[in-house]
Amino acid sequence: MYGPNDLRFDPHPVQLPPEPEPNKVRIRMRTVGICGSDVHFWKHGRIGKFVVKDNMVLGHESAGDVVAVGSNVTSLGVGDRVALEPGVPCFANMLPRQGRYNLCPDMQFFATPPIHGSLTTFVDHPSDFCFKLPDNVTYEGGAMAEPLSNGINACQRGQVAPGKKVAILGAGPVGLITAVAAKGFGASRIAITDVREDNLPLAKQLGVDHALLTDRSMSAMDIALMLQKALPPNGPEVVIDCAGFDSTLQTAVEAVATGGKVVLVGMGQDKCTLNTGTTLVKELDLHGCFRYTNTYPLCLDWLERQQVDIEPFITHRFGFDEKSILEGFDCAANPDRTKCIKAMFHLPGQ
Amino acid sequence: MYGPNDLRFDPHPVQLPPEPEPNKVRIRMRTVGICGSDVHFWKHGRIGKFVVKDNMVLGHESAGDVVAVGSNVTSLGVGDRVALEPGVPCFANMLPRQGRYNLCPDMQFFATPPIHGSLTTFVDHPSDFCFKLPDNVTYEGGAMAEPLSNGINACQRGQVAPGKKVAILGAGPVGLITAVAAKGFGASRIAITDVREDNLPLAKQLGVDHALLTDRSMSAMDIALMLQKALPPNGPEVVIDCAGFDSTLQTAVEAVATGGKVVLVGMGQDKCTLNTGTTLVKELDLHGCFRYTNTYPLCLDWLERQQVDIEPFITHRFGFDEKSILEGFDCAANPDRTKCIKAMFHLPGQ
Amino acid sequence: MYGPNDLRFDPHPVQLPPEPEPNKVRIRMRTVGICGSDVHFWKHGRIGKFVVKDNMVLGHESAGDVVAVGSNVTSLGVGDRVALEPGVPCFANMLPRQGRYNLCPDMQFFATPPIHGSLTTFVDHPSDFCFKLPDNVTYEGGAMAEPLSNGINACQRGQVAPGKKVAILGAGPVGLITAVAAKGFGASRIAITDVREDNLPLAKQLGVDHALLTDRSMSAMDIALMLQKALPPNGPEVVIDCAGFDSTLQTAVEAVATGGKVVLVGMGQDKCTLNTGTTLVKELDLHGCFRYTNTYPLCLDWLERQQVDIEPFITHRFGFDEKSILEGFDCAANPDRTKCIKAMFHLPGQ
Amino acid sequence: MYGPNDLRFDPHPVQLPPEPEPNKVRIRMRTVGICGSDVHFWKHGRIGKFVVKDNMVLGHESAGDVVAVGSNVTSLGVGDRVALEPGVPCFANMLPRQGRYNLCPDMQFFATPPIHGSLTTFVDHPSDFCFKLPDNVTYEGGAMAEPLSNGINACQRGQVAPGKKVAILGAGPVGLITAVAAKGFGASRIAITDVREDNLPLAKQLGVDHALLTDRSMSAMDIALMLQKALPPNGPEVVIDCAGFDSTLQTAVEAVATGGKVVLVGMGQDKCTLNTGTTLVKELDLHGCFRYTNTYPLCLDWLERQQVDIEPFITHRFGFDEKSILEGFDCAANPDRTKCIKAMFHLPGQ
Repeated sequence: MYGPNDLRFDPHPVQLPPEPEPNKVRIRMRTVGICGSDVHFWKHGRIGKFVVKDNMVLGHESAGDVVAVGSNVTSLGVGDRVALEPGVPCFANMLPRQGRYNLCPDMQFFATPPIHGSLTTFVDHPSDFCFKLPDNVTYEGGAMAEPLSNGINACQRGQVAPGKKVAILGAGPVGLITAVAAKGFGASRIAITDVREDNLPLAKQLGVDHALLTDRSMSAMDIALMLQKALPPNGPEVVIDCAGFDSTLQTAVEAVATGGKVVLVGMGQDKCTLNTGTTLVKELDLHGCFRYTNTYPLCLDWLERQQVDIEPFITHRFGFDEKSILEGFDCAANPDRTKCIKAMFHLPGQ
Repeated sequence: MYGPNDLRFDPHPVQLPPEPEPNKVRIRMRTVGICGSDVHFWKHGRIGKFVVKDNMVLGHESAGDVVAVGSNVTSLGVGDRVALEPGVPCFANMLPRQGRYNLCPDMQFFATPPIHGSLTTFVDHPSDFCFKLPDNVTYEGGAMAEPLSNGINACQRGQVAPGKKVAILGAGPVGLITAVAAKGFGASRIAITDVREDNLPLAKQLGVDHALLTDRSMSAMDIALMLQKALPPNGPEVVIDCAGFDSTLQTAVEAVATGGKVVLVGMGQDKCTLNTGTTLVKELDLHGCFRYTNTYPLCLDWLERQQVDIEPFITHRFGFDEKSILEGFDCAANPDRTKCIKAMFHLPGQ
Repeated sequence: MYGPNDLRFDPHPVQLPPEPEPNKVRIRMRTVGICGSDVHFWKHGRIGKFVVKDNMVLGHESAGDVVAVGSNVTSLGVGDRVALEPGVPCFANMLPRQGRYNLCPDMQFFATPPIHGSLTTFVDHPSDFCFKLPDNVTYEGGAMAEPLSNGINACQRGQVAPGKKVAILGAGPVGLITAVAAKGFGASRIAITDVREDNLPLAKQLGVDHALLTDRSMSAMDIALMLQKALPPNGPEVVIDCAGFDSTLQTAVEAVATGGKVVLVGMGQDKCTLNTGTTLVKELDLHGCFRYTNTYPLCLDWLERQQVDIEPFITHRFGFDEKSILEGFDCAANPDRTKCIKAMFHLPGQ
Repeated sequence: MYGPNDLRFDPHPVQLPPEPEPNKVRIRMRTVGICGSDVHFWKHGRIGKFVVKDNMVLGHESAGDVVAVGSNVTSLGVGDRVALEPGVPCFANMLPRQGRYNLCPDMQFFATPPIHGSLTTFVDHPSDFCFKLPDNVTYEGGAMAEPLSNGINACQRGQVAPGKKVAILGAGPVGLITAVAAKGFGASRIAITDVREDNLPLAKQLGVDHALLTDRSMSAMDIALMLQKALPPNGPEVVIDCAGFDSTLQTAVEAVATGGKVVLVGMGQDKCTLNTGTTLVKELDLHGCFRYTNTYPLCLDWLERQQVDIEPFITHRFGFDEKSILEGFDCAANPDRTKCIKAMFHLPGQ
């Protein structure tokens, strides 16, 4: 990416040293997914305070083959197939030492400026953030561990557990993968809402109990009542807002059961209206979400045991050349037209 | 109270049975404090969805003497001095059984319509919600256990603990008692802000480290930076908003440290702007507060051991007759003029 | 039960009032399971400090039909099919108010002396502790909610969750139902051990990954190593001891991963050896279990959604008359001979 | 230390590189305390599985002056006075990433074989594990942060908090510093027991409410009843066993309130009797303790604000030469004779 709307296929984007550093492995990329944030950087050159100033490689949902290992690495060997956890924190900081390494102020995260992403032929990455793929998990599964990790974090923040009724607002890729995670955490009943009808059948296929179409004429309270009716007797104990708009946050707060939890995932708007009166009287908890910690082992365990099905997410696949790259990004950027949920780039192997 | 702005001294407001019910005790009231909610009901006849329809006795911060006990009561006897926890939940409901009895949908709470309050000569109350005063705790101390309980709940919701830096927004009676509770929970440093200068000296006297005067020209971000500077190195890990305005909620979210907690206590506005972008990137927790559970034993323990000093709160004292009642409510309703923090009614004993 | 080893079929064991009390419902029993504690009372007349002094009806795993409702009851009506939560606490006590009502010092629990059990034609029970059976859940399912609740509590105490590897010591009815609960909580891999081979095939059928036969010549460390090998890479993060012997507790502590949890469920011996050195160096948590709180809604939800399969547990069924009662208890008391896992009494309907 | 009972003053025990490594600082030691584990290594050459094979420098309670900084270090500068957290984990492991870095399998901890301790003139240590001393905190205070950290961890594991009644078994240095920590966490009442009378007056001076002398003729149940009587109405909610003997663990389990917590700190015996029956019926939690995480900032905060008083612990002070070293260890090893609680070595400055 050379600037807003300026994406190119560069044969030599990043210079690697002859050998990976002692604690790193060198990985030949095999599969990289496109995330909404990649599209957003491409279109706007920034997300909030993160601004792309220099050329930057995109991509952070990725899996590949180990082709070389640093001198200290013992946990991995050449030929291992791995998924890459894209963010590498610094444990000199206090929050990482307390277990919340996602909040590291010095985090180095693929495709978050100025760090290059993983949509490139070779990447050097710390071995501790590369996770060996079980034999029955594909590279695509490994790449999907990244969005699934976001869904897991949302469920952990909201303490989704057996017996809980869960509502998810927004049936885009984030909402859908969060539904998959909520099922993995044992949610008793799940409802999902969207103003677009496109993904609701897939939601049902993934095991969501109620896939509810809303329309823009409905008030937040209307949708809240619809959710409470769908999830008797008390409505959802957890509402996960994967849209992040003024309307969805109000829906979340009004829909959630007394004593319940609202989880904020989507970034639709930078500021939203919070119904503080309701928040107080119901004594709610609201939890912001930012990435995830220690989720990759669980993702791969679920994938290995086929507890989650990520196959239906991957609606489009592309090769790795100038034309495919542009087609892929265009596809991911226009879901209304393409019905794309997740687009994957496949890079050539040896 | 006979209607908005219509408060009267009624010699026979509530008819009691000849004997208290089996699980109740009859209490001769000795001290009742005036809370902001009492003033609000008096002035407006309602608070949110709680509307005064019939005549209603006000008051819920109270202590008195046991004068009769029901047939099942063994824990208390005639002559015992007690503080009254004002809300009685029903444990047939699920939330009370899970330990959150403050969220009981069938709660009966003094002076929350249609339940009468405690500012009256005799009250019958379940013995399990009456707590014996230690010998060295006054009736005023017993009455203050109620507002202190709100402060305790705020600190528990925000997990205030040793080593935590805490900011409190609003230095009214609620903010000040919350500061006292935060000290009790071992907060390492406390800062409090207010646009009024009146109570800031008292805040310092109560042990607050930084009592900061703000003015209406300052933005939320200005005040946030002031707080971060006062509480190095990361700013407050917990911010307790005892005001509840659009501006204070934004201040709270911007001031709090990454990974921190914002506690909502004040009810200044029914809807406020939430900086969702910041909430996400810092992965914040926001916690609404509604009353409290199981706090009275701790309040009385702190008062007995003189860990908290409630004496400075009680700026005004009144007798119990028509003239005193009106004076008392007028005093509590006009703190700008009267400098009132907490007004107490003293009822005659035997 | 008239004394140790003296069990009789009494046509009029308990005198009920003409109408149930205001908050109770009268239930015609339909299905009652036999628990190990029933057998123990029958054989020994006591369990620890609980001693049967008077005649006492046994049974506490039960479901039936509502035949009359008290004057205050609105949640249930005549004809409703219900499962009965057997323990009724008193919320005047502090622990119940904090959400741990299983620890109520004044608990009234079916068939815990001197409270009569539920193996009788009619029982009056508080409506709040009767849970309506979903249409597709049998009376047997309702009765099984009780042992399943114990399994749920064990998993909750041990924080069994997705990704966790769990070992269960003892494959008797308690161990097996705990395995079912652990699967419901999303345990990633489950191993179970027993010195008897009988139930291991059923364990496999219920979804346990490793059903391991041990023998008495193996040391605690031998079995611990076997479990660590079965559950790579770190061994079980949670070990649930459903046997409760000196040897199993030592196995549990040696087998569990560093930082892991040992849950004590079985009551094989009153005192056991704790390897305190290992407990310290691994910084373990040990959690005793006593009954359960708020589990019935989850049990019925799992049964309704067929998340758990209790059918294979019920190996023996008996009618309700003198001969059947004695046969049933004899069957449950001699699992080595009868291969009984769970025996159920079926009482006649209308 | 050259072997069991062979301690020498070696002028050049450890060879340091010309410059500290990039992330380390070089520290001239100023104060080092003697811990029971140092004495144990000296006397026995091992603690459990940790065996001293080579020569090893002892000491891990330490503070000193920064004399050189590595090329990456920005948080500290030459001349800074610091306390040294003695254990350096490796964040490639899962437990450290989850916030429990004390359980790192690759921990490098001062004076835990084969890692050298800090009782030497110069030490290189990662800057992230060196904490700047506030101006009003002495080197001795910095050294005391280490034992205080153990007390903090015990209190955190046991969730000591305002309102809790706490019993501590054993009034040696560990028990006493744990009492200080429990006061810091707001414990409402504290009782301590010991069979030796020597330290009980100091316990009282440090703010313990009940310093109870026991004798060896008393059974565990006798002492448990004594504690329950001292801490009405329910006995201690938390019991911290700083002795770790068969008798103290039984006392702990019998003394603790229903639903309470027993914390294991002391290592008196490797195996102890656990009253499992009581553990089950009271549904207790037992928590092993191993070192601590993230405690140094709180220690220094408490010391700076004079919330804790470590002065009375330091009963003996020694210089740094062959004779003083031997005298110091002898003093610490014979508290019955010397009445030593904590002995400190003072090393010369510039």
